[in-house]
Amino acid sequence: MNNPPKKVVLAYSGGLDTSIILKWLQTEFRAEVVTFTADLGQGEEVEPARQKALLMGIKPENIFIDDLREEFVRDFVFPMFRANTVYEGQYLLGTSIARPLIAKRQIEIARAVGADAVCHGATGKGNDQVRFELGYYALEPDIRVVAPWREWDFASREQLLAFAEQHQIPIAKDKRGDAPFSVDANLLHSSSEGKVLEDPAVEAPEYVHQRTISPEDAPDKPTLITIKFERGDPVAIDGERLSPASLLTKLNQLGHDNGIGRLDLVENRFVGMKSRGVYETPGGAILLAAHRGMESITLDAGSMHLKDSIMPRYAGLIYNGFWFAPEREMLQALIDKSQEHVTGTVRVKLYKGNATVVGRESSHSLYDQELVTFEEGKTAYDHRDAAGFIKLNALRLRGLAKRDLRAK
Amino acid sequence: MNNPPKKVVLAYSGGLDTSIILKWLQTEFRAEVVTFTADLGQGEEVEPARQKALLMGIKPENIFIDDLREEFVRDFVFPMFRANTVYEGQYLLGTSIARPLIAKRQIEIARAVGADAVCHGATGKGNDQVRFELGYYALEPDIRVVAPWREWDFASREQLLAFAEQHQIPIAKDKRGDAPFSVDANLLHSSSEGKVLEDPAVEAPEYVHQRTISPEDAPDKPTLITIKFERGDPVAIDGERLSPASLLTKLNQLGHDNGIGRLDLVENRFVGMKSRGVYETPGGAILLAAHRGMESITLDAGSMHLKDSIMPRYAGLIYNGFWFAPEREMLQALIDKSQEHVTGTVRVKLYKGNATVVGRESSHSLYDQELVTFEEGKTAYDHRDAAGFIKLNALRLRGLAKRDLRAK
Amino acid sequence: MNNPPKKVVLAYSGGLDTSIILKWLQTEFRAEVVTFTADLGQGEEVEPARQKALLMGIKPENIFIDDLREEFVRDFVFPMFRANTVYEGQYLLGTSIARPLIAKRQIEIARAVGADAVCHGATGKGNDQVRFELGYYALEPDIRVVAPWREWDFASREQLLAFAEQHQIPIAKDKRGDAPFSVDANLLHSSSEGKVLEDPAVEAPEYVHQRTISPEDAPDKPTLITIKFERGDPVAIDGERLSPASLLTKLNQLGHDNGIGRLDLVENRFVGMKSRGVYETPGGAILLAAHRGMESITLDAGSMHLKDSIMPRYAGLIYNGFWFAPEREMLQALIDKSQEHVTGTVRVKLYKGNATVVGRESSHSLYDQELVTFEEGKTAYDHRDAAGFIKLNALRLRGLAKRDLRAK
Amino acid sequence: MNNPPKKVVLAYSGGLDTSIILKWLQTEFRAEVVTFTADLGQGEEVEPARQKALLMGIKPENIFIDDLREEFVRDFVFPMFRANTVYEGQYLLGTSIARPLIAKRQIEIARAVGADAVCHGATGKGNDQVRFELGYYALEPDIRVVAPWREWDFASREQLLAFAEQHQIPIAKDKRGDAPFSVDANLLHSSSEGKVLEDPAVEAPEYVHQRTISPEDAPDKPTLITIKFERGDPVAIDGERLSPASLLTKLNQLGHDNGIGRLDLVENRFVGMKSRGVYETPGGAILLAAHRGMESITLDAGSMHLKDSIMPRYAGLIYNGFWFAPEREMLQALIDKSQEHVTGTVRVKLYKGNATVVGRESSHSLYDQELVTFEEGKTAYDHRDAAGFIKLNALRLRGLAKRDLRAK
Repeated sequence: MNNPPKKVVLAYSGGLDTSIILKWLQTEFRAEVVTFTADLGQGEEVEPARQKALLMGIKPENIFIDDLREEFVRDFVFPMFRANTVYEGQYLLGTSIARPLIAKRQIEIARAVGADAVCHGATGKGNDQVRFELGYYALEPDIRVVAPWREWDFASREQLLAFAEQHQIPIAKDKRGDAPFSVDANLLHSSSEGKVLEDPAVEAPEYVHQRTISPEDAPDKPTLITIKFERGDPVAIDGERLSPASLLTKLNQLGHDNGIGRLDLVENRFVGMKSRGVYETPGGAILLAAHRGMESITLDAGSMHLKDSIMPRYAGLIYNGFWFAPEREMLQALIDKSQEHVTGTVRVKLYKGNATVVGRESSHSLYDQELVTFEEGKTAYDHRDAAGFIKLNALRLRGLAKRDLRAK
Repeated sequence: MNNPPKKVVLAYSGGLDTSIILKWLQTEFRAEVVTFTADLGQGEEVEPARQKALLMGIKPENIFIDDLREEFVRDFVFPMFRANTVYEGQYLLGTSIARPLIAKRQIEIARAVGADAVCHGATGKGNDQVRFELGYYALEPDIRVVAPWREWDFASREQLLAFAEQHQIPIAKDKRGDAPFSVDANLLHSSSEGKVLEDPAVEAPEYVHQRTISPEDAPDKPTLITIKFERGDPVAIDGERLSPASLLTKLNQLGHDNGIGRLDLVENRFVGMKSRGVYETPGGAILLAAHRGMESITLDAGSMHLKDSIMPRYAGLIYNGFWFAPEREMLQALIDKSQEHVTGTVRVKLYKGNATVVGRESSHSLYDQELVTFEEGKTAYDHRDAAGFIKLNALRLRGLAKRDLRAK
Repeated sequence: MNNPPKKVVLAYSGGLDTSIILKWLQTEFRAEVVTFTADLGQGEEVEPARQKALLMGIKPENIFIDDLREEFVRDFVFPMFRANTVYEGQYLLGTSIARPLIAKRQIEIARAVGADAVCHGATGKGNDQVRFELGYYALEPDIRVVAPWREWDFASREQLLAFAEQHQIPIAKDKRGDAPFSVDANLLHSSSEGKVLEDPAVEAPEYVHQRTISPEDAPDKPTLITIKFERGDPVAIDGERLSPASLLTKLNQLGHDNGIGRLDLVENRFVGMKSRGVYETPGGAILLAAHRGMESITLDAGSMHLKDSIMPRYAGLIYNGFWFAPEREMLQALIDKSQEHVTGTVRVKLYKGNATVVGRESSHSLYDQELVTFEEGKTAYDHRDAAGFIKLNALRLRGLAKRDLRAK
Repeated sequence: MNNPPKKVVLAYSGGLDTSIILKWLQTEFRAEVVTFTADLGQGEEVEPARQKALLMGIKPENIFIDDLREEFVRDFVFPMFRANTVYEGQYLLGTSIARPLIAKRQIEIARAVGADAVCHGATGKGNDQVRFELGYYALEPDIRVVAPWREWDFASREQLLAFAEQHQIPIAKDKRGDAPFSVDANLLHSSSEGKVLEDPAVEAPEYVHQRTISPEDAPDKPTLITIKFERGDPVAIDGERLSPASLLTKLNQLGHDNGIGRLDLVENRFVGMKSRGVYETPGGAILLAAHRGMESITLDAGSMHLKDSIMPRYAGLIYNGFWFAPEREMLQALIDKSQEHVTGTVRVKLYKGNATVVGRESSHSLYDQELVTFEEGKTAYDHRDAAGFIKLNALRLRGLAKRDLRAK
């Protein structure tokens, strides 16, 4: 390879695969490696990554370990939920939404340490490679991107393990054989893919689930909570004001305990193939229901219908890795504009897989009991207006019908 | 009123309200009334309407009672479900989708009997008046429409009841007082609105539900079913081939027994106000989940994303009463075109409010295990293609980033 | 009429029709009338309206005459042109965009003088009544709206003229008979409708045109101009910086002289009928071409395609009178976000009806000659990337084709 | 290269570049070459390609020369024009729409002759490579595609010419030097790109234009024509019924003579860069104007607005090469459904670059003079209906305004 990278910021988990990548960057390119390990709420300690990096010869000043949980939820998860975003009708985009933040932080570190390259551990068949790299290029157009899974010559798991052994990379026993499935996790969700999940006709085994108990195992008694929203974002649960990450953590626990947020999906990847995943988004599933409930009394029809109509496009952009593209930002401007009055409180019942809105109130409510009531009363509404409304809406249809009759 | 209707086809349920309307048409206009009573699966006997009509002086040849259940499901419900249609993210449009069929049949009868007018019993604040009347006008542009609730002079429930008594219309005891809520029902759903439901902050009482037991009361054991689809429509359950109405009836029973398909919603009416309804669509909720599951392996990304993006518009048209508008038919042509390969079998788990797809198979499947597998193997997919794919998708973003850097 | 208005702000042109309305308000309701006359660039003096109002007994402090030209162009016309807005593919919305400003100013005056009602002179068949009234209600929800053309009892032009004579309203000779067509005008455009234009098969006579000479009469020599844009709005012509209204005035002159901006259109009114209008938008037609030219080098594909896809909806909202609706504002937020870099200069050739972009330059340009050139050279683009790009874009299509072949 | 193609169907123009490709296929792969030359109305004789192919050793049975003009216009151009398709607001897609037909025919020939590969002469930076190859793969998923410009080792024009000389490929004198621009042409349009057009600030020189005289050179006298449409497609000019290709040929002549259909555009290529092209679509420009005119009286608002809103997506699909994708076919189903009544006659005035609709008539017209007239008369329209129409459309806005006032 001509023009080898000199100094590479690697997204480093501390696990076997990214350790192999770290070593490969050192041996293949003689590159100086800078490790970046983020706590995005994946549920694993991040500090051990420091020790591992040091053992592999990374200089202390080249080791970056950041707690990004608050930024992740505040600047990525919540903005996305303002749009009630689902991909292909169902997927809450838990993996997709974390990638741009990792990419952004890698570029910031690259600038800080004067690195000329960045590197990620995503495979060559998935969406994540796209999401990472579009993020990199959007922020630093001339950065050198290293994608080991597309570049190296290892042709099998065996060769990878041999390389690891050769370089004294410790291999946990359970990594010797093939994993029965692969996992991605952050504060919003965990996903499982591959191997035992590859036949979409076969039910996902219970053991692939990481973040929720099954509805069957959940308590046979509902849990009622209230979620308070301000301008489209949740800010408190049961009256307790919480930071974004703390709030999502708490929702996750509530969702976990009630078997909420599981999804078994066959989806269309950006790279052109279908894949099957099992997603668990316990807190996100509750949040989606609650946010819709909050909007139901605070958004007017025009705003809601416009939002709904652009949502699939917005979801597709995030799924495909275009978080930093101007059209995503344009859609965000539209969405954020709609949330100015999405403020109030929603009550949600959690029960064995269900998150059901059972009440909503808001000082910004557009719901007008006087207007809608069957009761007689003084109201702005005159029944006879409906006649004119219908007549003019029908005028076009009547014209069409007359033409049809004429043609007969 | 000048130009009174001479012969009116009334959508007649046999109940108190439409009986009052019937009498009012007779007394107010001296009109000949033709009653039309449809069995749309609302769960009430329709034959008693004949006796009531006869008692009110309707000529036998002016009494029409039709079982429209098969036509309803085949030509209205199933086409709508092909689009995974939900209004405002959640509502399965159970009431909306029945109105055009009633309107269509009323017009057919009007033509057959030489009537100059049609009449419905929908109030002046709701969507149904719009749906009925847009349907009438789209099919018979010069028909005279009578909408009693907007036209008569009764100013209170008391006056209506007095009119009923005066004309010997029998009043069931429970109709004396105000009903605590009002109900609409057909084979797809039942809806409850008004009175006890008017405060959206207050949970809907259990007793408003008509078609489902609560998830809490449902058995603590999952039920597994398979649904077979052909070209987008369900045709069999657990291997048993069923007519459209029979199939939906069976799904309704399954949904009922497992507490599936409840929705408590504040929605935006076409006439400009918000209202709160409790909807139960037991079979429809299962069907929606299953249809999405079937599409997930048989539709490609392009088709699915296009469908998803036009769905809100399609849902809005149905909700607003534009079933017979050309733009609804244009969208239907698009949707139907997409369903040619939506054929196969889906397994669904029903459990305490949840309808979860746990397996899908199809001879039309686009899912390609060879392609997606982590395993090495001969496959059409070359990892290196992803590099070029990303590079060209990034080209635009890089150009934007260079401009931004230039501007600094 | 019960509940007559007490103090009414009338949109008053000083012409015959609004003078009749003025008098009618006085006689019908004994209402105190406040006149509001706006200079929107319609090309008529507005001061004469003061004298006329005084003659009809309006108190001096109840006469409002405002020059709104700058506000009109800056806050209404230019924001609309940022979206390249056309209704039904062609109409530049010259009438539609003026109505919300008039409505807004009437409400401001109503508040200032303590009026309880507003009144406009739009007829009962057109779009303008809707635009005025939606504007009123959106800004002052409980305002009393008086729409004389829908309310009074005059059944013919003769009766109107008789009423005018009876109240000593002077009638210009050419208003005695029926006008051969009706006109609306402001700084953006003039429109002609009715009578001689009512048969869409017949060519519009030359004499209906008010703001342009015909292409045939325009000079046989092109005029070249440059228009400078900043953040989406034009700011200078041929290097001369101009205020919004001055700039549009100058473009109008240029368009007029070169026969640019005529449109003969059959359009769909919001109230359900088709109508035929002749529109002249000389400056606007040039501006639209120039703005598209400016965007062509400063907007990326993602932004441009998103804008194009939402434009018809945005145009429909303006046409239908929803300028002050939140969904229009949401779309505006999206559009405005896209214009941050739409800065630079466009050269336009004006010639006998044609406004042709012949050159564009910008320090914000995204056009990269290095990238696109056929010449060999150092560039970011690697031909081989295209292979991977195509392969992955084709992957889905190949899967579909394999299914089709399998089915045979 | 491993796995070399054995028998290749080459899209062969007979020109220098594709002759070099032909020879390269023979020398590089020892492949049997099948030439395919299509008459798409590009304005060059196709028969000479036979002689050239024979001279280069192609077997007579391996030479395919087809006149595809009628199929091109009937099955590709006209369906596209039904949607009033323009890319990025302006481009009539003249190049894009020809590619799928060429690809389709190459695959048909490959099947007929048992070829395992197809080959095109499009470069590695443009859109055409994508369009060809997506077409190939969509029709024959496992076809081997040879794209010489991305694959061979020639690094300069000189090397190419040297290869040509070495293999006795005749080189026309004017091909010795670099062409000042490159051209693509078919019956719909001709495009010019590159070299002298690469600076978008500089006006395109007159000599790049191939298919039109300039508006300045066009006669100073308008030409009036009538175009008859049936179900959305033009079928006759001035009363003379013509086949699709003959009709477009005639429109081209009319457009040519009147300087109509020139476009100087900077556009966004699918492969991520901007390019500048000069397009001439004389007949197409007239057809677009006429088709819109025909629709203006035969399509209702709902159909037209839906069409307009999906058009940009449809245009993007064609531009990007997805003609054979199911989502294009779904959109086509929607579009075609709308055209059932687009039947009638349009009069168009052609004058120095302008194609202006001056009249339209149709027995399918929805224009109703009775309805729209200012004249008094018996009509279906009641002015008072407008009041109710406005009131209910305003209800939502009034609710919003009340909330805003409440908040103050």
